[in-house]
Amino acid sequence: MKISKLVGERTKEVPSGVIAKSHEYLLRAGYIKQVCNGVFSLLPPAFRVQLKLEKIIREEMDKIGGQEVLLPVLMPKELWEESGRYSSIGSEMFRLKDRAEHDMVLGMTHEEAAVHLARNTIKSYDQLPFMIYQIQTKLRDEPRARAGLIRVREFIMKDAYSFHTSKEDLDEYYEKVKDAYFRIYKRMGMKNVVSVKSDSGMMGGKIADEFMLITDIGEDSLVVCDNCDYSANMEVAESILDIYDSIEQPTELVNTGDSKTIEDVCKLLNVKPYQTCKAVCYYLSKSKKYVIAFIRGDLEVNEIKLRNLLKEEVVAISVDHPKIVAGYIGPKNFKEEDIITLYDVSLKNAKNLVVGANAKPYHIKNFSFNRDFIPETFVDISKVKEGQKCKKCGKGNLKIVRGIEIGNIFQLGTKYTASMNMTVHDSKGEEINPIMGCYGIGVGRCLASIVEESSDEKGIIWPISVAPWQIYLCPLRLDDENVAKTTLEINNILEEAGYEILFDDRNISAGSKFADSELMGIPIRIVISPRSLQNNEIEIAIRKTGEKIMCSKGELLKTLKSIVDNLG
Amino acid sequence: MKISKLVGERTKEVPSGVIAKSHEYLLRAGYIKQVCNGVFSLLPPAFRVQLKLEKIIREEMDKIGGQEVLLPVLMPKELWEESGRYSSIGSEMFRLKDRAEHDMVLGMTHEEAAVHLARNTIKSYDQLPFMIYQIQTKLRDEPRARAGLIRVREFIMKDAYSFHTSKEDLDEYYEKVKDAYFRIYKRMGMKNVVSVKSDSGMMGGKIADEFMLITDIGEDSLVVCDNCDYSANMEVAESILDIYDSIEQPTELVNTGDSKTIEDVCKLLNVKPYQTCKAVCYYLSKSKKYVIAFIRGDLEVNEIKLRNLLKEEVVAISVDHPKIVAGYIGPKNFKEEDIITLYDVSLKNAKNLVVGANAKPYHIKNFSFNRDFIPETFVDISKVKEGQKCKKCGKGNLKIVRGIEIGNIFQLGTKYTASMNMTVHDSKGEEINPIMGCYGIGVGRCLASIVEESSDEKGIIWPISVAPWQIYLCPLRLDDENVAKTTLEINNILEEAGYEILFDDRNISAGSKFADSELMGIPIRIVISPRSLQNNEIEIAIRKTGEKIMCSKGELLKTLKSIVDNLG
Repeated sequence: MKISKLVGERTKEVPSGVIAKSHEYLLRAGYIKQVCNGVFSLLPPAFRVQLKLEKIIREEMDKIGGQEVLLPVLMPKELWEESGRYSSIGSEMFRLKDRAEHDMVLGMTHEEAAVHLARNTIKSYDQLPFMIYQIQTKLRDEPRARAGLIRVREFIMKDAYSFHTSKEDLDEYYEKVKDAYFRIYKRMGMKNVVSVKSDSGMMGGKIADEFMLITDIGEDSLVVCDNCDYSANMEVAESILDIYDSIEQPTELVNTGDSKTIEDVCKLLNVKPYQTCKAVCYYLSKSKKYVIAFIRGDLEVNEIKLRNLLKEEVVAISVDHPKIVAGYIGPKNFKEEDIITLYDVSLKNAKNLVVGANAKPYHIKNFSFNRDFIPETFVDISKVKEGQKCKKCGKGNLKIVRGIEIGNIFQLGTKYTASMNMTVHDSKGEEINPIMGCYGIGVGRCLASIVEESSDEKGIIWPISVAPWQIYLCPLRLDDENVAKTTLEINNILEEAGYEILFDDRNISAGSKFADSELMGIPIRIVISPRSLQNNEIEIAIRKTGEKIMCSKGELLKTLKSIVDNLG
Repeated sequence: MKISKLVGERTKEVPSGVIAKSHEYLLRAGYIKQVCNGVFSLLPPAFRVQLKLEKIIREEMDKIGGQEVLLPVLMPKELWEESGRYSSIGSEMFRLKDRAEHDMVLGMTHEEAAVHLARNTIKSYDQLPFMIYQIQTKLRDEPRARAGLIRVREFIMKDAYSFHTSKEDLDEYYEKVKDAYFRIYKRMGMKNVVSVKSDSGMMGGKIADEFMLITDIGEDSLVVCDNCDYSANMEVAESILDIYDSIEQPTELVNTGDSKTIEDVCKLLNVKPYQTCKAVCYYLSKSKKYVIAFIRGDLEVNEIKLRNLLKEEVVAISVDHPKIVAGYIGPKNFKEEDIITLYDVSLKNAKNLVVGANAKPYHIKNFSFNRDFIPETFVDISKVKEGQKCKKCGKGNLKIVRGIEIGNIFQLGTKYTASMNMTVHDSKGEEINPIMGCYGIGVGRCLASIVEESSDEKGIIWPISVAPWQIYLCPLRLDDENVAKTTLEINNILEEAGYEILFDDRNISAGSKFADSELMGIPIRIVISPRSLQNNEIEIAIRKTGEKIMCSKGELLKTLKSIVDNLG
């Protein structure tokens, strides 16, 4: 490819309002162009990368027995009514009417379409397990499209759906997919990838993992252990809570006046937040109940854990209830039917706490949970804090890092096969609903994530496995006959050896050419100049290391091979 | 791939309401499944074919310098307002609102997005010409989805857009694309493909060609010459009109009573339709004018030619105008401002015609167009009729055949670059609007068209270049140890040689296996049975010819190679 004809423009100016490196570089290096909020066109270099990413994904999906299909973007309302998601999904789903005023949706995920394809075409248990996948356009009306290709409203996604006769079979396959995902990211050149247990959200099902590329631009918080391989999404991360042991003191009622917040009470009574118990109030609008969540004062309630526990959406509120003394709520059995009381595990065995006295303006000092009030049960509803002990290894300290979600996998159970009435005959001839798993990777987000991880102040540094071109062929002074002749020769040698070449045929300065090659992130640059040719040498520059290697024309292929092997 | 795990079901029942062979076989052989009207899922075998079709298209587009990009499905209203097509395209475009109530459209074609991508990124004439293309999902709300994948509402399309500095450059490139298209269809195994001049419709521009696969199921009528390579869409086809010469007779006014139609008048006066001149009336609702189109009585008005001539939509009407005597309209200069009079070239030099007398209930006999009334000009507004002489070679007779449109190419001129303000500097530094061409191929329609052309009463016959698998490995009696061992051996030999194999591992009758292999259209079937192994032989059956070849295991690869070469 001659760069003079390459569609796309490279610019030095940093576009305004751009915070993510991938967003900046993909724009500046002529990879993407925004069409509207969260919608981009891919220019030729980006599409070349995308094709390589798709090839890696396809090969790894095929390796675990995947069968590629193509499900439609456009689907009728009825299909989504079968699963119940037509009403349960909100405004993130694009909806429209066709010319006959029929309600249609645009696919943001394809569980319904996958079940539609499989049901009636698969009839017997011995056809299971199987997995179908597609690499296809998805549309999702994100409220906050951001950071270029990181969060968009239209994207290419690999989504896969597996069907099983038993939970064990799904468990086994789920691990195979997990392995395949790690192979995929590795082949794409991503280094810092972890899988974390996560919340399954609107997908249904219980077990879910997210694959995260750890990077500062990430919008998710992850908890990782500095000793073992434990990693989890903040939403579900668990830790060992510090036990602040002390000798039980007698309780004491204190007038705390207007001090209602933990901060104020701590100041007034000269205690630390971990020596208090706070009450956080929520409302369940569906079942019309109040929730009082008691938790140690230094911790935060994890609302996702709370929602999963209560199986209902929760809304934090300033409580207004005749039986609740806001600001002074303390541990007790609220007997009212419309109040649910929860105690976080951080309170188990906690002693000498400051707690609300359920009477204005009083708190109680030296309250102990195994003496003054023993709840029926403790639940895990707290957010992990940096520095807490890892529950898996018991030794390491937990760190909180930022990550980009670059894939996710879910065990769906029979949510879709049951609601959509897909059955197969088991070995006894009984009809059963297959158990499903689903597995997603956003291709465009991977592309951008690679750039986030692999770039420097000059621009992108593509891993050689996914680079749009491996080699930037960069003659200086093409008007020099010797340079022109040698460049052509080398171009032919490289093409014959199967290299993909971006040929800078422009009559501009060496500096501008080098800057473009670096901004675009081409892994290897070959420079042919009148001066180097005088010594019968060619310069090879390695984008990643900045290293420069001189070699003769005769040694070129051998030298390149060893460079590529090193980069690969 | 083991057929026992292949997603999809093969059935003997012909689905109701199915008329096209491709629709029937693709459903029955487990290639497609309908999700709703005009929307299908592709099952694994179909997707394998689709990938091969895409590969062929991609290679041929790259060969003529195409740069692959990806434009979005979802686009904002504003982009389509720039070109004027937001209002000019009707209900075939899907429209929707996003969560911010912003008007969006779903792409049915991508001229606007292509110009959006190229403008400002291409600035100088020396970056031209260039061509960008994509293989991507299109949505079009067809009023009459039909015949399976032939006419659908969602489809994968290769669309390409080229940009040029001059008409000559576009002309040259246009021919290159034409050649590439013929190579594509040939590589896909289609035989009976012609390109025909066509009307450019809503795309704008003047020169347009359609690529047609000639087949009875086609929804378009084509005119082809039985002597030369002339072929054209009915909409624009021209012919040499027969001149029915005779000696001019004196005119005669005759009372024709209630005989208003050509049929009635012919019967009454004992003349043939070609000896009459009829008047066909239209209304132009935009400019609010009537059109009287005079044409020889045996011919039909081609409304597309008429529309192109008048540059306005025409509607056939039963005329109701004070100056027009319906049923008795004859040649004359209608002076009224709201009446346009047109004379078809079929009337030039015509003599002794029966024409209306513009007075009820009279016609005139022996009317001659070079004696009794000479129009200012004659225009070509007639439909070609089977048997007319070819205008290109002057010798052949024209035939009318049916065809499926499997591709189209258009010279767009500056319609989009001018309206959307895309400019580049020419060699003198002046700003010019590039001249565009656009080029489409529907991938799914190609898939179905191949089946239309290449199938028999048993099912599909895939050309080997696009078959989902080249070989159907068909052991009979896998419970026989020798059969099982040999099958496994042969499977390995074939895989190593790079063949794609569908392995029928089921324990069902030979007849059922053969029927499936034939319905699915796999080009080569290899049968391994206890009986043939007794003679150390393997049976190779060729789907296309029905031929059966016996060979030893040792000769298998050689024999296969020669079969494949013959099929290829």
